[in-house]
Amino acid sequence: MKINLKECMENVRTNTPLVHNITNYVTVNDCANILLACGASPIMSDDINDVEDITSICSGLNINIGTLNGNTIPSMFAAGKKANELSHPVLLDPVGAGASNIRTKTSLDLLNQVQFTAIRGNISEIKVLASGSGNTRGVDADISDTVTKDNIKSVIEFAKEFARKTNSIIAITGATDIITDGEKAVCVYNGDAAMSKITGTGCQLSAMMTAYICANPENIFDACCTAVIAMGVCGEIAKKRMTEQDGNSSYRNYIIDAIYNLDSETLERWARYEIC
Amino acid sequence: MKINLKECMENVRTNTPLVHNITNYVTVNDCANILLACGASPIMSDDINDVEDITSICSGLNINIGTLNGNTIPSMFAAGKKANELSHPVLLDPVGAGASNIRTKTSLDLLNQVQFTAIRGNISEIKVLASGSGNTRGVDADISDTVTKDNIKSVIEFAKEFARKTNSIIAITGATDIITDGEKAVCVYNGDAAMSKITGTGCQLSAMMTAYICANPENIFDACCTAVIAMGVCGEIAKKRMTEQDGNSSYRNYIIDAIYNLDSETLERWARYEIC
Amino acid sequence: MKINLKECMENVRTNTPLVHNITNYVTVNDCANILLACGASPIMSDDINDVEDITSICSGLNINIGTLNGNTIPSMFAAGKKANELSHPVLLDPVGAGASNIRTKTSLDLLNQVQFTAIRGNISEIKVLASGSGNTRGVDADISDTVTKDNIKSVIEFAKEFARKTNSIIAITGATDIITDGEKAVCVYNGDAAMSKITGTGCQLSAMMTAYICANPENIFDACCTAVIAMGVCGEIAKKRMTEQDGNSSYRNYIIDAIYNLDSETLERWARYEIC
Repeated sequence: MKINLKECMENVRTNTPLVHNITNYVTVNDCANILLACGASPIMSDDINDVEDITSICSGLNINIGTLNGNTIPSMFAAGKKANELSHPVLLDPVGAGASNIRTKTSLDLLNQVQFTAIRGNISEIKVLASGSGNTRGVDADISDTVTKDNIKSVIEFAKEFARKTNSIIAITGATDIITDGEKAVCVYNGDAAMSKITGTGCQLSAMMTAYICANPENIFDACCTAVIAMGVCGEIAKKRMTEQDGNSSYRNYIIDAIYNLDSETLERWARYEIC
Repeated sequence: MKINLKECMENVRTNTPLVHNITNYVTVNDCANILLACGASPIMSDDINDVEDITSICSGLNINIGTLNGNTIPSMFAAGKKANELSHPVLLDPVGAGASNIRTKTSLDLLNQVQFTAIRGNISEIKVLASGSGNTRGVDADISDTVTKDNIKSVIEFAKEFARKTNSIIAITGATDIITDGEKAVCVYNGDAAMSKITGTGCQLSAMMTAYICANPENIFDACCTAVIAMGVCGEIAKKRMTEQDGNSSYRNYIIDAIYNLDSETLERWARYEIC
Repeated sequence: MKINLKECMENVRTNTPLVHNITNYVTVNDCANILLACGASPIMSDDINDVEDITSICSGLNINIGTLNGNTIPSMFAAGKKANELSHPVLLDPVGAGASNIRTKTSLDLLNQVQFTAIRGNISEIKVLASGSGNTRGVDADISDTVTKDNIKSVIEFAKEFARKTNSIIAITGATDIITDGEKAVCVYNGDAAMSKITGTGCQLSAMMTAYICANPENIFDACCTAVIAMGVCGEIAKKRMTEQDGNSSYRNYIIDAIYNLDSETLERWARYEIC
């Protein structure tokens, strides 16, 4: 199997999907800029009286629960249900699920009341969703939950099962990224460890995955894989650009810049993935 | 007519106006940094129990309705009325007016209850305000609402009429920017198309326009034109600085940097505008 | 007396403390990135139903009252009390105390109900806390409150007294930074005037101080001094890196980058402080 990288990527630039984001205030600016960088258009809205109108004029919805609060939680449900009604794709990024009761409960309730097209998180967050409870160390993957050579097969099986149960594409991202629709599974080896030293690379990927899904309605699995690969490839391109004085702040800018300048030939050449 | 670019720009650096911003959480950091870059000082406050005190110690108020919500909407009215009471200039940036009922209604209600010194938006947003209803595609100008050579004269007439009706300076920004006080109108040709690939260049301009108005109370029309020209010129300067690897994230930084380093000679040399 | 710069700095990288931040939406992204840059891990959470759980899994809490609101104020108290219960360090950054009644009142009430390990602000903000009322010009130090050669001795005495009264380490930052635990006092001369042209260098320092305290529980005074010195040193390193075209936006990135790349030898070589 080959992923249709070129087509998936170029469709975003051609279709310029408008993506509705209900997202945290920490990384929201980077999410907006990476959406613009990849060829999409962002709109942020999280008020209960605003979200249904906004999601109606968009192509898809990205729900990120970081910095959730009593006002934005009802908006997530209202927007998610509206997007479902309109058959718009909806993505869930369960930031910090397992780190607090309200984050876990909100994620699980969203799963029950909204049909998600895709769910992206680290292994700990996805495990929390799958098990219906759990513990994560803030927004980072729990150490005991790291994906390694030894446990990758069982993680893939776990992800496939969760994908079938939720009828969603599951993307577990980390040193190795796993994307599955419940039948097929792809492992992505792109990326750089330093990406974890930037706040919000996960949030940015979730926003970009939503745009890719919107622009590729006939091929959403390939779209998700392409977004994950593009983020990893650009993490590598940006890393190569770094000088001795550059740190995580410049790296953040360089990754968004690399997404902006990415062409499909480079994407195909740098992509490292396999069916797994 | 020549715009007093040099004086308007230097007055901001000399007077260092403190600007109160009620603004969206997407681009708020860039708004703060561009205010500092141009010589002003920012303060952000949007709580109903905070805004009247804060606006009282400031020179002016910038109301930007992006990511408005049930808590911040009443704050916009309270701060706007307080600023009016104190004869402080107030600017409105009706982000996404037309994209949702609550954004349209809030903009129109603000127009009715607060006297704005200036209103800055894209053509779609301004049309929504003028017509009292409408439709915009998120935060971008509606395609059918693009300002072209063919319709620019009617757009100018429309803007002049709206300026007279609201007794505000109207700035319609896009590929060509139009600024009018209802009598005079100026067309600005500075800027670069890539600016639309950065989130919040409009928001940044609104913040900066507020600072320019604060620092030039005797000449607010020239102040508005100067802010618009400065933003466009710096968009061009920053564009020239870009390398092959730079994208929209670096471009964002370079524009703010260019505002920081802008001198009045450069501004005058690069300015491209005409009375229209 | 010599401050244990090397040990304090390296302990952050070794211990990677998870820091809970209740902070403003203006500079929150920079706070997250500087925490990652210095070796810590950030989590942001400000909802009343989220903060107690989140602070429980963290090593310490940073409360920054910029853009405080009716929802986040109760969260500051709940999280602060929970952190006290758990004997976690808690830092207060009273942004804009004195600029509005609600900011002053919230700061003073927090002081009464939460035991702070450290308090960091500019001279105006700290004076407001100490006097129980006052006036500050937005988020900048009141001109009449500038620390000068002539008044530095009385400022140090004032800070020591406030430190004893609150049983907190007090850090008054500005051109010269003063850190005291009520007995010892250190003056830091590092930094660059251009840092005041970036939004949020103070907020970033507060976040970083919290991380340093978390990682050095046996030596929190040295930890606070080291964080202040590190920020100043990196402000100088970043300044040297600036080209003619760089302004405050690139400078912001360069400071975070410098924190990311800082090694203890450089820190020790560049540090300029004295017991005072």
